[in-house]
Amino acid sequence: MKKSILGISGSLRASSFNSALLRAAFESVGRDADVVIAEIGDLPHYNAELDGDDKPAGVSRLIEQVRAASALLIVTPEYNYSIPGVLKNAIDWLSRPAYQSPLAQKPTGILGASMSPVGSARAQSHLRQILSGTVTPVFPYPDFLAGAAHTKFDAEGTLTDEATREHLAKYVSAFLKWIG
Amino acid sequence: MKKSILGISGSLRASSFNSALLRAAFESVGRDADVVIAEIGDLPHYNAELDGDDKPAGVSRLIEQVRAASALLIVTPEYNYSIPGVLKNAIDWLSRPAYQSPLAQKPTGILGASMSPVGSARAQSHLRQILSGTVTPVFPYPDFLAGAAHTKFDAEGTLTDEATREHLAKYVSAFLKWIG
Amino acid sequence: MKKSILGISGSLRASSFNSALLRAAFESVGRDADVVIAEIGDLPHYNAELDGDDKPAGVSRLIEQVRAASALLIVTPEYNYSIPGVLKNAIDWLSRPAYQSPLAQKPTGILGASMSPVGSARAQSHLRQILSGTVTPVFPYPDFLAGAAHTKFDAEGTLTDEATREHLAKYVSAFLKWIG
Amino acid sequence: MKKSILGISGSLRASSFNSALLRAAFESVGRDADVVIAEIGDLPHYNAELDGDDKPAGVSRLIEQVRAASALLIVTPEYNYSIPGVLKNAIDWLSRPAYQSPLAQKPTGILGASMSPVGSARAQSHLRQILSGTVTPVFPYPDFLAGAAHTKFDAEGTLTDEATREHLAKYVSAFLKWIG
Repeated sequence: MKKSILGISGSLRASSFNSALLRAAFESVGRDADVVIAEIGDLPHYNAELDGDDKPAGVSRLIEQVRAASALLIVTPEYNYSIPGVLKNAIDWLSRPAYQSPLAQKPTGILGASMSPVGSARAQSHLRQILSGTVTPVFPYPDFLAGAAHTKFDAEGTLTDEATREHLAKYVSAFLKWIG
Repeated sequence: MKKSILGISGSLRASSFNSALLRAAFESVGRDADVVIAEIGDLPHYNAELDGDDKPAGVSRLIEQVRAASALLIVTPEYNYSIPGVLKNAIDWLSRPAYQSPLAQKPTGILGASMSPVGSARAQSHLRQILSGTVTPVFPYPDFLAGAAHTKFDAEGTLTDEATREHLAKYVSAFLKWIG
Repeated sequence: MKKSILGISGSLRASSFNSALLRAAFESVGRDADVVIAEIGDLPHYNAELDGDDKPAGVSRLIEQVRAASALLIVTPEYNYSIPGVLKNAIDWLSRPAYQSPLAQKPTGILGASMSPVGSARAQSHLRQILSGTVTPVFPYPDFLAGAAHTKFDAEGTLTDEATREHLAKYVSAFLKWIG
Repeated sequence: MKKSILGISGSLRASSFNSALLRAAFESVGRDADVVIAEIGDLPHYNAELDGDDKPAGVSRLIEQVRAASALLIVTPEYNYSIPGVLKNAIDWLSRPAYQSPLAQKPTGILGASMSPVGSARAQSHLRQILSGTVTPVFPYPDFLAGAAHTKFDAEGTLTDEATREHLAKYVSAFLKWIG
């Protein structure tokens, strides 16, 4: 059966390099899988009091999308040496009940971009730790770090750097094989 | 001059053990400093497009509170081996401009509670890393971990466990001396 | 074909709780796989100058053992909120060449014990990050934390705590299925 | 009184970029403080059985050096997304008794170099966490990351990159001010 991948971008900015990287990854996926990009900017802040049978609308939608997907692809910028609060908040909503949530055992890949040379390495380390707390298997692959991102995308958000394009194509190909 | 401490709780739940721990810490402060508890639940998700001269109301208020405080005391639960998204989001808003933000060089203490025996240790590790990204000096003290929190507070949120009360009083006393 | 598991203990102490936990795990494996415990205490400190074709004897032996194993089971104490230097040193020797080393894609489980209630949670977080750097897939399972270890083993190093024994048997069973 | 700084390099390689970075930092210190470089390559692997009154010779020497120093400056490469085992081992020996060890409250700066653009950022994050476990205050300053190190030092290990030299001079100047 055809696989489906749900993409999540940790940045809400319209011209985000990370959202652009996610789109480039999904272009590279082509027809090998169905792809959808999730919306996380409209979720309320997690509060256990709201997390009952009648969840906020955006939360129910996201939970359904994760359940329906064969795999996740999360792209994250680095804010203060970690992932953005908005991305962590989405994971918090997706993480219940503990160890049996929609995230449990859901194959997940991680990508990231930043203007600094570090390329979101610290954020990706945190994200991997967080996803170990949700028993989410993360694609074992060298960190994909798109550093100096402002030199690699054009004004329309197209990934123009050839070496990064090739690196991304290899990543996507190996990821598709892994989720298999 | 009298010191002032701004308290931030990472949990929005009304009956949160962490908010209760913050109140207990502030009782222990007594008249040795002025104390205020911040509101972070009404901030929008961080988006660089909103982060101009005309910031969202809750953000401006929080920035002013942090600037006015001599020190911060952050209490954090552990959600998925890290801090809650809502707490990270508040830090993201407070972190600009990089290295010269309201958080830069602001003396900060960390406390945490959880029902598990781990007592938020993994969350506190993440919080320390995050605060290194904002060049925020964190009180060098053994991790304060209120594990098995449901056995240490009563139904009204009063810290009733005697050993934890003594431990907290020592922490607060050493913290006041450090921010001195 | 029968699977084989190489066990590595991060503690050199003869009466180590972690080595005792590893032995208990291997008893639980029973005849379902072959098990061997590695020696890491006789390796020199890693130095790239020694890491040529003619490696130190203990290093070559350990590399062969990892290559021959179907999977690894690493048990780690927590020293200073991380794994012991001696365990990190063994991983450093095993990690070359980068991303194609004996550790690359080798299925690995993590366990840990400590006298504190934290049960080595911070050390295990570091170990997972380190093993992401060697593209080593780590068993996605809730952290196995044997806290208050001195109350769970007898003087001979036998795991006597019934709840921990059951928890360990479940872990081992799921791990065997995962390496499968 | 004149301050003294003990330097520790996490790399044992004779032509290590990190040891070269430490020497460059100490040149920048000039006569503003006394400087000594520690030896950590001859310590045995930490074993609690050896950690009694009669410690191994190298351990006693290192403990004395840390006690005598006003501050530490640690430079670390990144091995497998963390610090080298040999550096962690030295910290393990220096960390007893817990919270009252030679490392407790000893002001410490961190620097790092690597050939990758990440510049040891992940290793420095781990080192900061480890030093929080020893209640060692770490200089609150943006991560000093000498990435692409092979382009910044000459064959004799002299730091020739002008921008890095200026960055290092600012770091050292601020560090000296911080240690007071």
